[in-house]
Amino acid sequence: MNVTVNGRASHYRTVTFDTRRNAVLLIEQRLLPHRFKVVAARDFRQTARAITDMVVRGAGAIGATAAYGLAQGACAFRGRDRRAFRCHIETVSEILKAARPTAVDPVNAVNQVRQAMRVGETIEEQQALALAAAEEFANEDVRHCEKIGRHGAKLIRNGMRVLTHCNAGWLAFVDVGSATAPLYAAQAQGKKFHVFCDETRPRSQGATLTAWELAQQGISHQILADNAAGHLMQRGRIDLVIVGSDRTLGRTGEVANKIGTYTKAVLAQRHHIPFYVAIPLSTIDWNLKSGFDIPIEERHQSEVLGAWGVLRNPTSGLPTNSSKPRTQSSYIRVANPTSGAMNPGFDVTPPELITGIITPAGVYKPNKLWSSRRELGCVS
Amino acid sequence: MNVTVNGRASHYRTVTFDTRRNAVLLIEQRLLPHRFKVVAARDFRQTARAITDMVVRGAGAIGATAAYGLAQGACAFRGRDRRAFRCHIETVSEILKAARPTAVDPVNAVNQVRQAMRVGETIEEQQALALAAAEEFANEDVRHCEKIGRHGAKLIRNGMRVLTHCNAGWLAFVDVGSATAPLYAAQAQGKKFHVFCDETRPRSQGATLTAWELAQQGISHQILADNAAGHLMQRGRIDLVIVGSDRTLGRTGEVANKIGTYTKAVLAQRHHIPFYVAIPLSTIDWNLKSGFDIPIEERHQSEVLGAWGVLRNPTSGLPTNSSKPRTQSSYIRVANPTSGAMNPGFDVTPPELITGIITPAGVYKPNKLWSSRRELGCVS
Repeated sequence: MNVTVNGRASHYRTVTFDTRRNAVLLIEQRLLPHRFKVVAARDFRQTARAITDMVVRGAGAIGATAAYGLAQGACAFRGRDRRAFRCHIETVSEILKAARPTAVDPVNAVNQVRQAMRVGETIEEQQALALAAAEEFANEDVRHCEKIGRHGAKLIRNGMRVLTHCNAGWLAFVDVGSATAPLYAAQAQGKKFHVFCDETRPRSQGATLTAWELAQQGISHQILADNAAGHLMQRGRIDLVIVGSDRTLGRTGEVANKIGTYTKAVLAQRHHIPFYVAIPLSTIDWNLKSGFDIPIEERHQSEVLGAWGVLRNPTSGLPTNSSKPRTQSSYIRVANPTSGAMNPGFDVTPPELITGIITPAGVYKPNKLWSSRRELGCVS
Repeated sequence: MNVTVNGRASHYRTVTFDTRRNAVLLIEQRLLPHRFKVVAARDFRQTARAITDMVVRGAGAIGATAAYGLAQGACAFRGRDRRAFRCHIETVSEILKAARPTAVDPVNAVNQVRQAMRVGETIEEQQALALAAAEEFANEDVRHCEKIGRHGAKLIRNGMRVLTHCNAGWLAFVDVGSATAPLYAAQAQGKKFHVFCDETRPRSQGATLTAWELAQQGISHQILADNAAGHLMQRGRIDLVIVGSDRTLGRTGEVANKIGTYTKAVLAQRHHIPFYVAIPLSTIDWNLKSGFDIPIEERHQSEVLGAWGVLRNPTSGLPTNSSKPRTQSSYIRVANPTSGAMNPGFDVTPPELITGIITPAGVYKPNKLWSSRRELGCVS
């Protein structure tokens, strides 16, 4: 999407490849929203470390980063020994797959690139195939998100007020995003609407990443404390909810997503507000039989006990000079120092609360995913 | 309630009167939870300023502060001119009533003390009557909260997990509190239970004040991000919800309280979890005919865009030395600097979501308040 740097808007992806320098270029997401910077990972180990250290995060984005990382590792190989090359590719693959052990996308990405390399006969051919496959992996991620946008934009009408939760935006993919894709597509169609971003405590991805994305695209928006949406729904001030998902069960239509998603779905149902989940097909888990089998990560309590941000003018509470944002992030302890916290990272929303699942293949009722599994690419 | 200072537990009220020094003693609530300190307001103007400047906050607490402030003003009068004394009392009353213009409690408190003074014939008699009336006002606040505790404690059984929202604790009253009163009473009865405190963004009164209160009383508790309770309810890990109220409509049973209360009530109903509201009788509004007529304060967006707290070790995120807490509060900007926020301060929960209203006179169904208005002290 477009990012305005020094007053000039340019198009960026979260991850791209510089063939001349054999480098993976990444938006340094840990500096956002306070500073925009693109960094270069100059070898596959740096690329793996960028995944581990959260320079890049989000399912689609780390998948493409791993795909490029494998191509980068392949292209860095010097020599004619095909056995040594195979051994090198094995090492690169393992290091990239281990960079974020719980994520499935880097594994899929690495496997897909290696599959493509197989038809190459020489090392040079295989290197070229790896690069092309990585590029294709990233492009496919973008095409899928664009399709989500096309299907989802039909739900957005002029004047609507749309609620989002957390960040399932273009920063989490290669471009466009999942939950944000319908917003960007509707904007491109000239529709006018307003977005409420849930702050999304404890990590505040809504207040930081989603709000930054929407501000960059010039979409009218406001941040809400997570407590506020219920009141706005009750007063008739929210018309539509769109969220992303970390895992959607193909068999049951249950949706695992950032903590607080379930609460918003319950509120939306009470107020007869359509509640949609936007996902790429890779997010669908065709195996698990119940949402109760989804492991809910219990995260560190310090996230709840305080906040991360940038220290500002304490009287105005506003950035003192937004053209020169300070990038030093600070942790502030808010809670009582002798209290602990419980911090579940995700929750599970049952299908009866979900109006539809927006996929690249169209919008499906959650309980119709299973019967549509062939057209949704389930191969089991 | 008890507060442990330097390892020794002593009993405190949020506000007391020192007759020897003619001073109102207040817990300096702006330093909590990071530092406990009692400050003395040495004349009625300082007392009024302590209300205005939020040294003391909470309906019951500022009511008692105003009552003591009037007694303090009366006792400071020197001379024998009864007309000058009446004029002085008028001035003191106006200044105390204007200290927090939207609150009704200081007005009621001042009127009650002045009513009691009427039977005095000499200035000395009236001074003594003012002091006695202020003391009685504070004691009555405590007795009412204790009665709320007695009625509410019956709802708490061993092993229960109780959710609270915001702070309706003893810090908001003279002692004991409203929503916390059942917890303290149940603890005194030897019951064992666990409390989840909603963080209560944007001002985090749950994470700061309620958590501090519970830690001081040694009640098992954990802080939750406001997003988490829905998930815990879904997994059967919350048994009871008790909240306070800023205004409860006697005619309809609607409850206005801190933003997010309505959301928790909707979730509790879905999961068949009892949802109670604990209030002193002064919180009941017998006039308003609809919750939609309750003005919802729209607060400054900077509360949502950042957080207030104490700067800590940025790597561990934990207090570096909790025996010497730093008291310098800092504001940290969390949200995207080019985004704004919407910040409604309160919401309204309809009676069908409320299991019962815990009052000093007993527990009532919200739709029975009106038919019970005589026993609840409605005089209109």
